[in-house]
Amino acid sequence: MTSILLRALFCKRTSSICWQVFSGVRYCGTGGKMSAGCGSSGRTLIGVCQMTSRSDKEDNFQVYSELIERAATRGAKIVFLPEGFDYLGRGIPQTVSMAETLHGELMTRISALAKKHDVWLSLGGFHEKGSESDSNRVYNTHVMMNSQGAIVATYRKTHLFHVDIPGQVRLKETDWTIPGGEIVAPVPTPAGKVGLAICYDLRFPELCISLAQMGADILTFPSAFTQTTGMAHWEVLLRARAIENQCYVVAAAQTGAHNEKRRSYGHAMIVDPWGCVVACCHEGTDVCVAEVDLDYLHKVRREMPVWEHRRHDIYGHIELKT
Amino acid sequence: MTSILLRALFCKRTSSICWQVFSGVRYCGTGGKMSAGCGSSGRTLIGVCQMTSRSDKEDNFQVYSELIERAATRGAKIVFLPEGFDYLGRGIPQTVSMAETLHGELMTRISALAKKHDVWLSLGGFHEKGSESDSNRVYNTHVMMNSQGAIVATYRKTHLFHVDIPGQVRLKETDWTIPGGEIVAPVPTPAGKVGLAICYDLRFPELCISLAQMGADILTFPSAFTQTTGMAHWEVLLRARAIENQCYVVAAAQTGAHNEKRRSYGHAMIVDPWGCVVACCHEGTDVCVAEVDLDYLHKVRREMPVWEHRRHDIYGHIELKT
Amino acid sequence: MTSILLRALFCKRTSSICWQVFSGVRYCGTGGKMSAGCGSSGRTLIGVCQMTSRSDKEDNFQVYSELIERAATRGAKIVFLPEGFDYLGRGIPQTVSMAETLHGELMTRISALAKKHDVWLSLGGFHEKGSESDSNRVYNTHVMMNSQGAIVATYRKTHLFHVDIPGQVRLKETDWTIPGGEIVAPVPTPAGKVGLAICYDLRFPELCISLAQMGADILTFPSAFTQTTGMAHWEVLLRARAIENQCYVVAAAQTGAHNEKRRSYGHAMIVDPWGCVVACCHEGTDVCVAEVDLDYLHKVRREMPVWEHRRHDIYGHIELKT
Amino acid sequence: MTSILLRALFCKRTSSICWQVFSGVRYCGTGGKMSAGCGSSGRTLIGVCQMTSRSDKEDNFQVYSELIERAATRGAKIVFLPEGFDYLGRGIPQTVSMAETLHGELMTRISALAKKHDVWLSLGGFHEKGSESDSNRVYNTHVMMNSQGAIVATYRKTHLFHVDIPGQVRLKETDWTIPGGEIVAPVPTPAGKVGLAICYDLRFPELCISLAQMGADILTFPSAFTQTTGMAHWEVLLRARAIENQCYVVAAAQTGAHNEKRRSYGHAMIVDPWGCVVACCHEGTDVCVAEVDLDYLHKVRREMPVWEHRRHDIYGHIELKT
Repeated sequence: MTSILLRALFCKRTSSICWQVFSGVRYCGTGGKMSAGCGSSGRTLIGVCQMTSRSDKEDNFQVYSELIERAATRGAKIVFLPEGFDYLGRGIPQTVSMAETLHGELMTRISALAKKHDVWLSLGGFHEKGSESDSNRVYNTHVMMNSQGAIVATYRKTHLFHVDIPGQVRLKETDWTIPGGEIVAPVPTPAGKVGLAICYDLRFPELCISLAQMGADILTFPSAFTQTTGMAHWEVLLRARAIENQCYVVAAAQTGAHNEKRRSYGHAMIVDPWGCVVACCHEGTDVCVAEVDLDYLHKVRREMPVWEHRRHDIYGHIELKT
Repeated sequence: MTSILLRALFCKRTSSICWQVFSGVRYCGTGGKMSAGCGSSGRTLIGVCQMTSRSDKEDNFQVYSELIERAATRGAKIVFLPEGFDYLGRGIPQTVSMAETLHGELMTRISALAKKHDVWLSLGGFHEKGSESDSNRVYNTHVMMNSQGAIVATYRKTHLFHVDIPGQVRLKETDWTIPGGEIVAPVPTPAGKVGLAICYDLRFPELCISLAQMGADILTFPSAFTQTTGMAHWEVLLRARAIENQCYVVAAAQTGAHNEKRRSYGHAMIVDPWGCVVACCHEGTDVCVAEVDLDYLHKVRREMPVWEHRRHDIYGHIELKT
Repeated sequence: MTSILLRALFCKRTSSICWQVFSGVRYCGTGGKMSAGCGSSGRTLIGVCQMTSRSDKEDNFQVYSELIERAATRGAKIVFLPEGFDYLGRGIPQTVSMAETLHGELMTRISALAKKHDVWLSLGGFHEKGSESDSNRVYNTHVMMNSQGAIVATYRKTHLFHVDIPGQVRLKETDWTIPGGEIVAPVPTPAGKVGLAICYDLRFPELCISLAQMGADILTFPSAFTQTTGMAHWEVLLRARAIENQCYVVAAAQTGAHNEKRRSYGHAMIVDPWGCVVACCHEGTDVCVAEVDLDYLHKVRREMPVWEHRRHDIYGHIELKT
Repeated sequence: MTSILLRALFCKRTSSICWQVFSGVRYCGTGGKMSAGCGSSGRTLIGVCQMTSRSDKEDNFQVYSELIERAATRGAKIVFLPEGFDYLGRGIPQTVSMAETLHGELMTRISALAKKHDVWLSLGGFHEKGSESDSNRVYNTHVMMNSQGAIVATYRKTHLFHVDIPGQVRLKETDWTIPGGEIVAPVPTPAGKVGLAICYDLRFPELCISLAQMGADILTFPSAFTQTTGMAHWEVLLRARAIENQCYVVAAAQTGAHNEKRRSYGHAMIVDPWGCVVACCHEGTDVCVAEVDLDYLHKVRREMPVWEHRRHDIYGHIELKT
C-alpha cells in the first residue's frame, strides 16, 4: 500500500502536479502517524559535505562540485551541502547584494550538476533574494532538488540565530535575514522522507517533533555553527534529535575560517536513529558517505515505541498552525 | 494533595517566612516565565547519588543514609536519590507487595534523615502504594522533601517505559505501575526551582519544555536506565535537555546488577545549563557534589535567548491541560 | 613463518612486482621511520565489520561472507573482521577443540572469498590450533590475507586479557590461549601499512608506538570487548591511539550476546589520524565503509610533528627485542 | 635542586614527621612499583582551576586567589592552577621580561596564600627566569608547594609544543622556552603521589608510563590548550592517560581569549582511574572540586592488573636515563 503511494509520488516528482502534492503533503496511509509499519525499506547511500565557504561564489562552486562528484562516484543518491554553501559574505551589504532567486544563474548551474551526476541535492541555506518590500534582507532557504535538477521543496529558516557571548561571538541573523513562515512537510526521496531545517532550528525540539510526526525518516540540519557553540552543543543536539525522534539526522557543515571574523565548527555527520554517529567528515573540506537503512529505522521504532507513549492528554499536541 | 502543598509554598514565596525556609535564597514571582531576569542567584552545593538497590529495604536504607551523610558533610543542601532507591524487587508480585504510602514507615525514617543532616531530599522513584481500585500496581513517585522532613511536592511518573529489544532487554512498566496524570510545577528549593521527572520522561522534550516554561532552574531525572539504553542515550539526552532548556540537569542513577536479570547503567551526573557535565559519580556506589550556580544559568540565558526565539505562531505552545 | 612472508613483501616494495601487488599505491622505504615525508598518497576505501559470533562456524561464515560482499560492492579494498569472527565457543574445551590451522578448511574457504571479491582481508583473532606441546590451548592470531587469497602476515596476540570485576565480568585468557612472542612489522596493503594488534593490546601504548615507529599508517584492533569495559574505554582508547600515533585506527568488533554468559560492546569504527570517528557501525550486524586518506594523514603529521618532539634522551626508545 | 627537595621528602616518608606533614595519610615505600598493594587509602578533596590569564600579573593573582579560597572553603587539600597562571604575555619579549625566579616576589605571595588557606598548590606552568647563559628564554616550570608554603618539587616542561596548522594556529614554544632535562619522581601529597607534567607532555605516553611506574596515583597536566587542538584531543587524551595508567588525571586549564591572538579551550577536569570525568569546570573562570579516592584507585588496579601484563620481553622497559 505504502509502496504504491510512494511509487506514485516518485513518478509525480517530475511533474508540475508535484508542487500541490508537496505543499500540505500526503503520506502513505499513516494518517500523520510515524512510519514504523510503513513499507519503505532498504539501504541507500547518502553523502554529506563539509567545506569552508568564502565570498567568492565561483571558488565555492568548484569546491562543492568536486564534493558532489566524489560522493556520486561512491554511490550516493543524495548529497547534502551546508548552510551558506553558495557563499559567506564579509558583511551584511555584501551578503545581501550577492543573493539570487531560486531561478537565477547559480541554481541553473547546480541543476546541471544534479543531472550530470544523477543525484538529489539538499542545498541547505541558499541565500535567496528577498521580496521587493524587504529587499535589504534575504531568505535563508533550504532547497531540495531531485536528480533531474528540479526543485521539489523549499524551506525558509524559521528560527533565526542571535547569540551574544561577550569576547567570543556576536551574530544577529535578523539583521540580514527574513524569517520563514512555515514548516514544510517531509520530502519523499530515494533515501526516505527528508524533513527540512537549517542550523539554529536544531535547538528547538518542537520543530523536529513536528517533522517527525509528519513522517520524516531523516532530519537535516545544514549548518554553519560557530566554533564556540559547536564544540559545546553540535554533536549532542544532533544525536539527541536522532534519538528522541528515531530518525536519521544528516548535518552538512561549514568549517574553518571564512574570513578574519568568522570561523565554523565543522564535524559534518550522519547520525542513525539509535543515536550513533555512523559517519563524520575529517577536518577541512571533505565529504562522508554512509547508508540510510530504513529497515534499521523501523526496527528501532518497533523496539521502543516512544510515539505511542506520548502524553498528549497532559501537554497537548505540537501541531502546525496553518 | 501535591497541588495543595505546592500552592502553600508558592504563597510563602512572597512572605518573610520564605527566607528562612529557603536559607537566604531569594525567589521572584516569575508567573511562569523563564527566570532569566530574575533575582535568584548564588552558588549552592547539591549531591547526586548512585547506588545498586536490591530487594532488601534495610540494606538499601543503609547505603543511601551513608551517601546522604557524605553529601551533607561536604556541604550539599539537597541530595538526590535515584529511581527505586527504596528497593528494586525481583518480580512484579514482590515489587507491588513491598510498596508503602507516602506516610508509611520508610518515609518517616527518611524524614528523620533530612532533619538530622539538614538537607532537602529528592526521592526519585519511590514505590507508592496504589489506590484501592488498582491495588495490584504502584505509583512511581518522585517525592521532594525539605530539610524539616516535610514532603513539599510529589510527581507520579507520566511516561511509562516499554522497551523490547530482542535478546537484550524487555521491560513493560505498565504491568506494575499506574501512570501519573499531571505535571507538577517546579519546586522552589535552596538551589533553585526544581522540575520533577523520572527516568523515561527524559525521552520526551515536551515534558521538559513544560517544566522550563513554568520556571524550572533544575530538571531532575532520577533513573534506573538499562545498560543497553544507557550506553547509547543517557549522557546525550541529559546534556541535550540541559542545553535546549538552559537548565541544570540532575540525574541520580541506579548502577550495576540488582539481581540475575536486571542491571543498570549508572553515571549519575550533574549537567550545567551550557551542557557541560560538571560532576559524575565513579563506578559503583558513590555520591558526587557540585555547585548549582544560578548566576551562571542567567548568563547562559541572557547570551542565547532561545525562549524569545520560539515560533509559537507556527507550532503553537506546549501547554498543560488541566 | 610470518616474518619470512613479511620480509618477502618488504623486498618486493622496491621491485617492479611491487606495484602490481599493491594496485598502484607507491610505498617508500622508510627504514623504520615515520612516513610523513613518504610518497604514499590517495584515498582508499576500507570496510569494518561488526557481528555476533556464536559457536556455529557455518552460521558465522554466512554472516561475514555477506558483510564482505557488501563492503566489496561499496568499493572497499580491505575488509576487517573482528576477533573471534570464526566462532566464540561456550567454554574452553569447545573453544580449543574447534580450532584449525592456518591452512585448514576454514582458511581455504576464506581465501576463496578474498579472491571472489578481490579484497584484502584482516582476519582478526582467528583461533589457530596450538603447538603439539601445548595442544590444550590455541593462538589468538590476526591473519592478513591479500586479494589473491594468500596469507601475507600473521600476528599472535601478545597481551592476554585478564579482568575480574566482581559481579560484572571475569575472563582469564591465558586459560585457553598461548601468548604470542613478537610484534610484526606493519604490512603494506592498498590502503597503507597496517600494524597488527588484537583487542586487549589496545591498552598498551608501547605496542602501538612500536608499530607507528615501524611505519604503520593504520593500527588495527579487531576486538571482542566486553560491554562493561567497552562502554568505559573503547572509543576513548581507540581515539587516543589514533591521535598520539597519528595513524588511522581500524577496529572491527563483536557485538551483542554470544551465549548466556558473554556479551560484547560493538561500536566497530574507523578513526582518522586527528582522532575523529569517521565511520561507525550501527547496533547489531553491520559493516561500515570509509576512506583511508594518506594525504590527510601526512598533513596531520606535518602540522604537529610529535615524532620529532620525543625525548628519547630522557626515557629511551621503545625498541623491539629480537 | 629539584631532586634535593624530593629526596628530602622521600626520606621523611619513613619517619614519624611524615605523618604530620601528610595529615594522617600513610605512604608506603613502593620503590618505584605500582601502589596497588599499598596501604594509602581514603578520600581527599582537590580543587582544579580554570581561568583566563592575561598580561597583568596582579589581575591574574586576584583571580586565582579567589579560586583558591573557594576551593579551600569547600574542603580541598590541594588546588591546581593551569599553565601560565602567573601571566600570558602578548609576545616573546614581554613573556620573557616578566619572568621571575622560584624565590621572587610572586612565589613569596603565593606561599602566603598556601599558608593562609592551609592548602597544597600545584602551580603548573610558572614562567621561571632562565639561566644567565640563556636569559632570552624562560623555563616552563610546574611547582608543587605544600600547605606550609614550601616548594617541595619542580618540573621543567620537557616536551615543547610546536604546532603549525595553516589558517588556524601557529605556536613554537622553543622560541621562548628552555626545555627541561628530567622527569621528576611523583610527589607525596595529602591526596596521593602526584606525577608532574605540563600541557603538551600529555601527548607522550612514555612520560606518563614513567610517572606511573614510579608510583604516581595522580597525573597532572596543567594546560593552555588551543581551542583547535582542545576540541579535538583534550578530553580523549586525558581520559586515555587515566585509563591506561590507572591513575587520577588532574588538568587545570586556561580558557577563552587571552589577547587578540590567543584563545584557550578550557574544560579543566578531574578524571578517575577508570576514565570517568568526575568533575569539570563550567565555561569561563571557575574551580571544580572532587574526591581523589585511593581505595577506588586500588580497586581498579586489582581488577585489571595491566601492569602485570606488560610484555617487557618484547618491547623493553621505558626507563629514565640519568
